[in-house]
Amino acid sequence: MPVMSPADLLKFLDENFPQAGHLDLAIEHLDDRTIRVRLPTHERHLRPGGTISGPTLMWLTDCSFYLLILAQLGPVALAVTTNLNINFMRKPEPADLIGEGRLLKLGKTLAVGDFTIWSDGVKEPVAHATVTYAIPPKR
Amino acid sequence: MPVMSPADLLKFLDENFPQAGHLDLAIEHLDDRTIRVRLPTHERHLRPGGTISGPTLMWLTDCSFYLLILAQLGPVALAVTTNLNINFMRKPEPADLIGEGRLLKLGKTLAVGDFTIWSDGVKEPVAHATVTYAIPPKR
Amino acid sequence: MPVMSPADLLKFLDENFPQAGHLDLAIEHLDDRTIRVRLPTHERHLRPGGTISGPTLMWLTDCSFYLLILAQLGPVALAVTTNLNINFMRKPEPADLIGEGRLLKLGKTLAVGDFTIWSDGVKEPVAHATVTYAIPPKR
Amino acid sequence: MPVMSPADLLKFLDENFPQAGHLDLAIEHLDDRTIRVRLPTHERHLRPGGTISGPTLMWLTDCSFYLLILAQLGPVALAVTTNLNINFMRKPEPADLIGEGRLLKLGKTLAVGDFTIWSDGVKEPVAHATVTYAIPPKR
Repeated sequence: MPVMSPADLLKFLDENFPQAGHLDLAIEHLDDRTIRVRLPTHERHLRPGGTISGPTLMWLTDCSFYLLILAQLGPVALAVTTNLNINFMRKPEPADLIGEGRLLKLGKTLAVGDFTIWSDGVKEPVAHATVTYAIPPKR
Repeated sequence: MPVMSPADLLKFLDENFPQAGHLDLAIEHLDDRTIRVRLPTHERHLRPGGTISGPTLMWLTDCSFYLLILAQLGPVALAVTTNLNINFMRKPEPADLIGEGRLLKLGKTLAVGDFTIWSDGVKEPVAHATVTYAIPPKR
Repeated sequence: MPVMSPADLLKFLDENFPQAGHLDLAIEHLDDRTIRVRLPTHERHLRPGGTISGPTLMWLTDCSFYLLILAQLGPVALAVTTNLNINFMRKPEPADLIGEGRLLKLGKTLAVGDFTIWSDGVKEPVAHATVTYAIPPKR
Repeated sequence: MPVMSPADLLKFLDENFPQAGHLDLAIEHLDDRTIRVRLPTHERHLRPGGTISGPTLMWLTDCSFYLLILAQLGPVALAVTTNLNINFMRKPEPADLIGEGRLLKLGKTLAVGDFTIWSDGVKEPVAHATVTYAIPPKR
């Protein structure tokens, strides 16, 4: 079972990363292996033509995966991203983004997982990423 | 439905890539999105200590994903790998390797997917990869 | 020789991606293979502790590499990122970021290169990325 | 200065990885940041059409980067690959392969670098990879 709830996680983000503009991120599901998030589409995320920018997708990936790890390790963990590899596969629709993260390894020093992003209501994924976080030793 | 069967694929490999030493690769499942393969462990794949080498895992990933694409496009396709990103997560056991590939996009010019590898009988995965293949234009 | 100058590129960005907040990005060098950019550090890029967020580094990578390709192809090109792989290696200092991009391939359908980021005045790099852009066919 | 010489490294490989078939790999340059290797082209590396297989390029990358790290840490180090990301950019010629590796970070727990491969005599690179190795704690 995760040691932090979705509400705990969003409060932690709000207090520690006020610049991140995450306030609208919703956590729709969380367990000890997976997370499902929803990002409402805002005008500032849009590129000309109504699509959503690559950096927004990368931010969503990094942030959501951080929350998934934090949920398992608790709020003191200072995990940092060491690798992020993302394939952009389709142009996102101007709709909410749905993201699903999956922990493939939660080791003592490294956490590895993948993250898939869809436009709400569209079957084929927009992007798929793998992420590695380094977990600092306990003090 | 795939246009090539597992038997077609292995025959194609055998005729076109005799050096690849693929003869023992078994295709346990194949559909229009996924493939499941089994690689019996041979001594020549082993490293000291009885583990399986990283290059063997990369070869298995590349070859299996090629078969998955070939199954959809038919034997004339000359798809070539353009990107392979692999995370090695656990030391493989000296057991058969099980690999599962999943097509995330099969476009006109690019195919993208991921591939997960397990040691037979062990729940946690050994490695996870994402692969991109370029699909040449039809003549 | 590039077909667009640094001034052309920044004007293009300003007109087409007003949301991107790129206005302070400076192009210090540009030729037919490489680009060197400088990003002044703003408060909104900072994380607690004065460091620069991962998403800022990913945005800088993606944007700079886009400019490098655009410089070669001209303003009509609608290149889109298909893959971005980044290794975060050191905590950035609260200093300007310096980025250097290098085209390794500029093909008809794909452009590939790498991008290294430093904190100004520090020898060891902060991050290193590889990027692939798909280049649409000429109409 | 590296603590192992090219001759030391090849002897270590020969004794510890006899299956790897590395015997013809030559180390043309080695310092505390970089390595340059040459792989003579053998028939068993070739694919139909005279090109060199992707798995051979991945093996060359992984092995050479391992040697570069080993040269700095000495023969007791049991570094293991945790991530390898490779972009295949051009079809290799049936010529010797030249590879150049570069350490971007040699930390206490992770080493990160990149590796570029050329066909001997051809200016444009065949492939470019980034590699991460985990370095085990000293006992």
